[in-house]
Amino acid sequence: MSEQAIGVFDSGLGGLTAVKELIKVLPQENIIYFGDTARVPYGTRSDSTIKMYARQDARFLLSKGVKLIIAACGTVSSVATELYDSLPVPFTGVVVPTATAAVRATRNGKIGIIGTPATVNSCSYKTEILRQDSRIQVFQQACPLFVPLVENGFIAADDAIVQLVVERYLAEMKSEGIDTLILGCTHFPIIAQAISDYLGRNVVLIDSGKETALYAANILSSQSLLNTSHTLGSCTYYVSDTVEGFRKTADVFLGRSVEDTAIHISIDQLTRS
Amino acid sequence: MSEQAIGVFDSGLGGLTAVKELIKVLPQENIIYFGDTARVPYGTRSDSTIKMYARQDARFLLSKGVKLIIAACGTVSSVATELYDSLPVPFTGVVVPTATAAVRATRNGKIGIIGTPATVNSCSYKTEILRQDSRIQVFQQACPLFVPLVENGFIAADDAIVQLVVERYLAEMKSEGIDTLILGCTHFPIIAQAISDYLGRNVVLIDSGKETALYAANILSSQSLLNTSHTLGSCTYYVSDTVEGFRKTADVFLGRSVEDTAIHISIDQLTRS
Repeated sequence: MSEQAIGVFDSGLGGLTAVKELIKVLPQENIIYFGDTARVPYGTRSDSTIKMYARQDARFLLSKGVKLIIAACGTVSSVATELYDSLPVPFTGVVVPTATAAVRATRNGKIGIIGTPATVNSCSYKTEILRQDSRIQVFQQACPLFVPLVENGFIAADDAIVQLVVERYLAEMKSEGIDTLILGCTHFPIIAQAISDYLGRNVVLIDSGKETALYAANILSSQSLLNTSHTLGSCTYYVSDTVEGFRKTADVFLGRSVEDTAIHISIDQLTRS
Repeated sequence: MSEQAIGVFDSGLGGLTAVKELIKVLPQENIIYFGDTARVPYGTRSDSTIKMYARQDARFLLSKGVKLIIAACGTVSSVATELYDSLPVPFTGVVVPTATAAVRATRNGKIGIIGTPATVNSCSYKTEILRQDSRIQVFQQACPLFVPLVENGFIAADDAIVQLVVERYLAEMKSEGIDTLILGCTHFPIIAQAISDYLGRNVVLIDSGKETALYAANILSSQSLLNTSHTLGSCTYYVSDTVEGFRKTADVFLGRSVEDTAIHISIDQLTRS
């Protein structure tokens, strides 16, 4: 079983920021990624629709024989929590690993959380943080414009549009004096510089992709599922929209140019499997 | 047949800007609207995915016995052009009515077109304008951030973020001296004031929803399909995501508070019908 792949899914290509971290932490693992690019974004949809999509995504990865499933998507991790109990393989979302890292990082006990509307409405990060330490003060803010900004190339830290949107969403948290901020959506690390420039260097940014990769390594290790091969693992990418857009966008999230192409899996196959 | 409804569909709720105009022009008509809110937006997806979604949307309206179908969506009208020939009832998109109005409106022969990436890549408006008058100079610009701006409430003409994004996208057209601009996406009329403030009062904005409503009235009239009833028609709204978000957002596009609620139609029903 240890040579089987780790399955990672996301509403689109944002989850590749988690894959990037996973490759750093576990270079020998094979990874199968599914990005639901024909139905992205999830974060502004209703809970019932998000749950249905997440079930279909996980079922697709199971059909590929994965040994662990990671929902590298703040929205799915926050809303489709029944996946934790319903899958025949270990599963993790991004909420628990990321909340745990934030609780460790804060010095003044004031943590900010930003995410999609669905993530913030679910209070998933907040609930997990308070479960770990009820004395912490939590400040939440939905940032629905960050995903389209990143997806349309508005990412430069010196872009006045990026700076203004960051200020609009984060002004209140800044005035509250948070010292730790959870980037609760896989797209947000792409504009981390602009966020950090606005909040100042004393505020620690917690990247959900990075923390989740470390957490996944722990799950595999504790269940003796680590791939002990000495060769580098492979990555296989599936997307539900056509594959043309993949290579163009994937490098933004993976942080390197991608020579792989993706494989198309139709919505019909997803909903009927 | 004249008492049957007009069917209108859109990727989401933006097409309600066309319904608003339709109610003004044809108050006695019954209207059935379908908004594919579980899969919005279409404009950044591939052509093959957009065509598949459009076929499913039209099929759903046919199942409701409509006498005319309007694709109140710049993306569908531009990409899924095979709908013109494949439906058993009259069909119109927004491209031909809107291009015709722009050709009539221009005085200096310089027309700008803004829309989603899929609409602009299709060159649909440009092709139709040049078919009508090959001497016209056409300037196109994809504005992918306008839809999320509108959907997330960034619509005030004095909002610095709206103003900066408008300037970023339209600076080149302005310097080219266009005197007519096609708002080639149903969301764009919502920020028409900001666009007009930037381009100046001499530039005429052409609203695809308004022109398409007038065009639809002509089709019905010429085919003797007008509803000759003397009572006001009714509107029935269907959405593919849950109905909770409908009333909250619908009034932005309809320009009045909506007392109706929408009916949910699941993606499963859409894809399997």
